[in-house]
Amino acid sequence: MSKLDAILEQVDTNMSASVDKLVHFLTFPSVSSQPEGKEGILACSDWLKSELGKLGFDVQVVETAGHPLVMARTGSDSGGVKALFYGHYDVQPAEPLDAWITPPFQPAIRDEDGLKRIYARGASDSKSQVWSVLEAFRAWKETAGDLPIDAIILLEGEEETGSPSLPEFVEIHRDALSCDVAFISDSDMWSPARPAITTHLKGLLHEKVTIHAPNGDLHSGHFGNVAVNPVRVLARILASIHDDRGRVTINGFYDGVEPVSPALRDQWQALDITEALSGVSVAGGPDEGGGYGPIELMWGRPGIDFNGLVGGNTGPGERSVLPGSASARLSFRLVGRQRPEDVRAKFRSFVEAGLPVGCRVEFEGCGGSSAVSVNDAGPYVAATARALDCEWAQPTLIKGTGGTIPLIELLTNSLNVDCIVTGFILADDAIHAPNERYDVERLRKGIRSWVRILSELANFKRGSNE
Amino acid sequence: MSKLDAILEQVDTNMSASVDKLVHFLTFPSVSSQPEGKEGILACSDWLKSELGKLGFDVQVVETAGHPLVMARTGSDSGGVKALFYGHYDVQPAEPLDAWITPPFQPAIRDEDGLKRIYARGASDSKSQVWSVLEAFRAWKETAGDLPIDAIILLEGEEETGSPSLPEFVEIHRDALSCDVAFISDSDMWSPARPAITTHLKGLLHEKVTIHAPNGDLHSGHFGNVAVNPVRVLARILASIHDDRGRVTINGFYDGVEPVSPALRDQWQALDITEALSGVSVAGGPDEGGGYGPIELMWGRPGIDFNGLVGGNTGPGERSVLPGSASARLSFRLVGRQRPEDVRAKFRSFVEAGLPVGCRVEFEGCGGSSAVSVNDAGPYVAATARALDCEWAQPTLIKGTGGTIPLIELLTNSLNVDCIVTGFILADDAIHAPNERYDVERLRKGIRSWVRILSELANFKRGSNE
Repeated sequence: MSKLDAILEQVDTNMSASVDKLVHFLTFPSVSSQPEGKEGILACSDWLKSELGKLGFDVQVVETAGHPLVMARTGSDSGGVKALFYGHYDVQPAEPLDAWITPPFQPAIRDEDGLKRIYARGASDSKSQVWSVLEAFRAWKETAGDLPIDAIILLEGEEETGSPSLPEFVEIHRDALSCDVAFISDSDMWSPARPAITTHLKGLLHEKVTIHAPNGDLHSGHFGNVAVNPVRVLARILASIHDDRGRVTINGFYDGVEPVSPALRDQWQALDITEALSGVSVAGGPDEGGGYGPIELMWGRPGIDFNGLVGGNTGPGERSVLPGSASARLSFRLVGRQRPEDVRAKFRSFVEAGLPVGCRVEFEGCGGSSAVSVNDAGPYVAATARALDCEWAQPTLIKGTGGTIPLIELLTNSLNVDCIVTGFILADDAIHAPNERYDVERLRKGIRSWVRILSELANFKRGSNE
Repeated sequence: MSKLDAILEQVDTNMSASVDKLVHFLTFPSVSSQPEGKEGILACSDWLKSELGKLGFDVQVVETAGHPLVMARTGSDSGGVKALFYGHYDVQPAEPLDAWITPPFQPAIRDEDGLKRIYARGASDSKSQVWSVLEAFRAWKETAGDLPIDAIILLEGEEETGSPSLPEFVEIHRDALSCDVAFISDSDMWSPARPAITTHLKGLLHEKVTIHAPNGDLHSGHFGNVAVNPVRVLARILASIHDDRGRVTINGFYDGVEPVSPALRDQWQALDITEALSGVSVAGGPDEGGGYGPIELMWGRPGIDFNGLVGGNTGPGERSVLPGSASARLSFRLVGRQRPEDVRAKFRSFVEAGLPVGCRVEFEGCGGSSAVSVNDAGPYVAATARALDCEWAQPTLIKGTGGTIPLIELLTNSLNVDCIVTGFILADDAIHAPNERYDVERLRKGIRSWVRILSELANFKRGSNE
């Protein structure tokens, strides 16, 4: 039996313990966007420190202005390449809680469709992704001794809030983070049989907009037909952001957008859209009226989305209130050379221009990230694809995503490191939604994939690109 | 000293006790639209039964499918007219609680602007209105013995939810409710110096509309640019309900609307709009572009208002969610011969026509009331105006309102009774809003007003209209 086969067998043998550890990881309510999540964040980062220590890494929990990062590295010099492995241990809020079939932080394993599915917030995005890497390290060490590379592990606690502390962290720890290649373990497969490496990632900014009427709450029976209603103002502004086909009407929004190359477009158009959407219906959705297919819309076109809406009476009963204010949350997904601050300024001017006399608008939002494209002709992309091809039934797809991972922009632009973005999330894992799930077989194949990637990396020389 | 003067003096002497009793009345959290309000509703109706019993009335608490009504009557035959006095003891929800300077069900009396202001939910709408009538009865009885009329008192617990049980109640108790005149004590003054009798009341219906996407919640980064967003669909539908000037665009909405008579219009246009609005700004508000002044818009024109809005992420943090649904609450204020069911059907067709393929709409709402106009040339209107003229600094105004009191339609149309709608609410009492308030001096003059009305009623013969 080859060394690789022995390590892969160790992965299979150890699966029961791997699942138990992941389940424990999933019990921490590490919700980064809610103040009440702080306790779960801290407990989770402490637990990760302890687990990484047991695996033989030098670990530190690095405090930031927000939530801490867990940073670990192999203690001795392997003589191999320096590779960074990034993941995040924070999760999205679990609300609405009553939509979950089992409580979001009490992981439950259910037999469904021939799979053992683990239900929990973070089951797919992204604790299973983090855990697959760590179990690969464990299997390697238990079977073959030291890793064949110098590994740096970086686990973030603010990914779901746009990574506000990461730029300063990367700037401060430039030397410690310097590496030959960085693996970003937080992305999806093309289909259950086909793995993927994501090379096109969109930029992102969030805005919250609140329309304030000149008055506070009023009786709608008395004043509804004569005083301005901020819900109506907000609805009119939101409705005017897109035309009938979903194309953004904000002046200059598309500045800096670059067309997808004809070659890549052809490749994307050849894909089976049913597989890409995995049960999600796009009936009635936007298409810009520009002849873009669904995949190009998702991976190659910028957009503005509405994530939340609240105003006036949100309770169960009727109430004759003319609300004093109404607000919406929006997110902007950017491509090409669109700049977040430029898009933000144009959006705010657009809203202000639509504001009736007497009303006032309040904006919340700062920062944001630009789009990133990773060079998909480099040797690490090819090595990773070879590794994945061996584990999965279908060949690796080089793809794009509408999602955003802020670290990639920082590593690419600040540290000039090649980033390999891969992971095993599927579209119907219900990430960011109630009943998020992952399956045990995918966990097993994910761990084995990382073992195979380590085995490929053993062939590289430090500082080399071949 | 005349008998009337002696009774009025008794009102003044007894004010401290009157305030204490009202304060106790205000401690009941009798919120009719929330399930958790039931306990407060029941405790409040029991307390009212006890208080009316102590005042010498025959009282019963009448159960309904919803909340109970408290019905009381004078025990002996006075030989005078039969007069019904209606009020409601239920209140609007108090949310948002953190906007209150003192807790909504712990009444606080504050010295402000030379007034003693009572802060509490229901302080103005409508517990002080109910209490003014009862204290007038108390002063009369303590000073002069039996009332000069046969009084029927009807206190409702569902006014703020559109009085769903009232039609059946009125039908069942037709005989017990038969009377010469009905006083509806739940309306506003023109200004702090000028009392009013309201003869034009709008009809009302509520609708809740929920747009369901074909999918549940999704990750907006992945699917935001290609799957339909129900917030966007809802915003577009709400935005299209009115044109730029606030005129409703729903086909046939204005069917049955009757123009205000030129004489009434002249009278309304002569009023000081600043007094009518009492600090409320109408900047940026709708005007239909039809040359209507603010008073005609409030009292004489129908409208559609947005009372609430909710969808997706309503929490404090950012969340990349493409919501699975979004909903809005609307209220429709009707005039003339507009029929609630007709307006509801037209609205629903309008929404359905604006729905993209793949989306589904869900409506909640039933019932509703038509507009009512009371004959303002009758003798009871004149008698009430004489009474009010004696108490207040300026002469009584005959006015309209955008508000709705379902009982009036029932009494006018079912029992053919003249309804006199009066009360002492002011526009800046913050009814239906946080920090609702009323002042002690207005309570005193309100009680005295009802004593003067009783004194006028003593001159009427039973069954007479003169």
